[in-house]
Amino acid sequence: MTLLYAFDLLGTAAFAASGALAGIRQKMDVFGVLVLGLVTATGGGTLRDLLMGDSPPFILKDETYLYLSVAVSLLVFIFHRRLEFLTHPLIYFDAVGLGTFVVIGTYKAIEFRLGFFGAVMMGVMTATAGGMVRDLLSAKVPMVLQREVYASACLAGGALLYLLQLTAMPSALTALISASTVIILRLLAVRYNWSLPRAADRTTT
Amino acid sequence: MTLLYAFDLLGTAAFAASGALAGIRQKMDVFGVLVLGLVTATGGGTLRDLLMGDSPPFILKDETYLYLSVAVSLLVFIFHRRLEFLTHPLIYFDAVGLGTFVVIGTYKAIEFRLGFFGAVMMGVMTATAGGMVRDLLSAKVPMVLQREVYASACLAGGALLYLLQLTAMPSALTALISASTVIILRLLAVRYNWSLPRAADRTTT
Amino acid sequence: MTLLYAFDLLGTAAFAASGALAGIRQKMDVFGVLVLGLVTATGGGTLRDLLMGDSPPFILKDETYLYLSVAVSLLVFIFHRRLEFLTHPLIYFDAVGLGTFVVIGTYKAIEFRLGFFGAVMMGVMTATAGGMVRDLLSAKVPMVLQREVYASACLAGGALLYLLQLTAMPSALTALISASTVIILRLLAVRYNWSLPRAADRTTT
Repeated sequence: MTLLYAFDLLGTAAFAASGALAGIRQKMDVFGVLVLGLVTATGGGTLRDLLMGDSPPFILKDETYLYLSVAVSLLVFIFHRRLEFLTHPLIYFDAVGLGTFVVIGTYKAIEFRLGFFGAVMMGVMTATAGGMVRDLLSAKVPMVLQREVYASACLAGGALLYLLQLTAMPSALTALISASTVIILRLLAVRYNWSLPRAADRTTT
Repeated sequence: MTLLYAFDLLGTAAFAASGALAGIRQKMDVFGVLVLGLVTATGGGTLRDLLMGDSPPFILKDETYLYLSVAVSLLVFIFHRRLEFLTHPLIYFDAVGLGTFVVIGTYKAIEFRLGFFGAVMMGVMTATAGGMVRDLLSAKVPMVLQREVYASACLAGGALLYLLQLTAMPSALTALISASTVIILRLLAVRYNWSLPRAADRTTT
Repeated sequence: MTLLYAFDLLGTAAFAASGALAGIRQKMDVFGVLVLGLVTATGGGTLRDLLMGDSPPFILKDETYLYLSVAVSLLVFIFHRRLEFLTHPLIYFDAVGLGTFVVIGTYKAIEFRLGFFGAVMMGVMTATAGGMVRDLLSAKVPMVLQREVYASACLAGGALLYLLQLTAMPSALTALISASTVIILRLLAVRYNWSLPRAADRTTT
């Protein structure tokens, strides 16, 4: 699965960049920007490993993710004005990361023999929990809880993966279809500005 | 302990409902509402299991709690206007959940051979940490840290349980007395609007 | 290492006092003040132990830290007006805690055979994560991400410790030099009002 590892690193870099940009917008210092990049890129997988009891978590087994996240965050910190041209491609990289993280998280949970709900939850968490912590560290309500088809694209991909792996389909194909589902749903949601329904507030009429 | 399991599920449902309502008030989308319901209902016990090293946490061993929390949250999301009549009973269900969670958490910690402070802390955490994460995800200072006799009712019940189980009292009776203590203290606090003392702010005169 | 244990307790007390003061400023009730003191003093080491898989975390093995944190927080809650004279010394105690926690955390990570990045991260986290949770529970962006040379003093000390322990230097001397580096950098930063660079906000000109 060398391709999966390449996508994993691409997604990690994209998530680190989005975290570092959030830190810059919050007027954090360079340490804060690095922490936000690091947490956004690796927080989801770390929380997944903690919950599943896979100890120590992946970031402490293969430090590549840590070095990559910090290097990307540092580059964003220094060159963020000159990297404006990457804002548009970042949406695509982020979507690739989303699809890859869902597949990696859900597969790992299946290996750990979790049930359907637990496995899909681990997939969604791998892809979204880092961004939630990024928003918490910025003292904001996590974006993913409020709007846009983001976590729900992950939910669809994770559930699809769980079901497909029950069939005789080769695992590489299962992974490809599931990741593509997440990526396509996410990009369609950005393109057509999809969002999920909200309940009307009880306190208003 | 079938009765304890029934109370546990009732408390889980009540906590999920309170979390889902908080998500609706925050104008979150349906995914956010489900996450808030889930986290409020299961976050305390999950954090307890993580800290005690009971891996994987209870929610991944018996997925009932996950399905129940999501089902309740979804019902609240859809029917919250028609469920107004449940607002008052919810206070009682919440108190039952509080008492049950304290007893379950403290007992589990005693089985894991924690000391007095650790065991009571695990009991209080089981009952209150989910609500704290709910408030953090809403970018608010946790309610439990600010006002009302809520965590302190749990503290009293957890400490009582720890002391009673040192005696020859049958464990079912110990559990019943401790849970009742929490529930009665909590309901009295709501009824008579009790709150804990605060320190005057140093910066004011 | 009796001296290290004494410094560890002194740092714990200083961190608990800073947490309790933050709770008082937030107008929390007595329970909230105790929780903030407890979390500030013990949260960093607890998160470190969770991430490294050292289960249960140190606070549940030796309850001294819990009792000390709560006792200090309670004293601060009751006597905070009369303890004004301690505000200045608190900066020194806090710096001692910072240096001690970095050394303890980094050493423990090295014993757990983490790599350079992981070990230094564990040292910095031991010293700073408790304060970050304190700020999150106050619904604030963590201070350490925004300003002052605080985490960076820890980074320097942790990296120095990792490198020195690769040499033949006796471990007591290595610990002393590393802790002193953190403490001196921190006190110089307070004295001369050092802070780290920030990126200019992309949205402003």
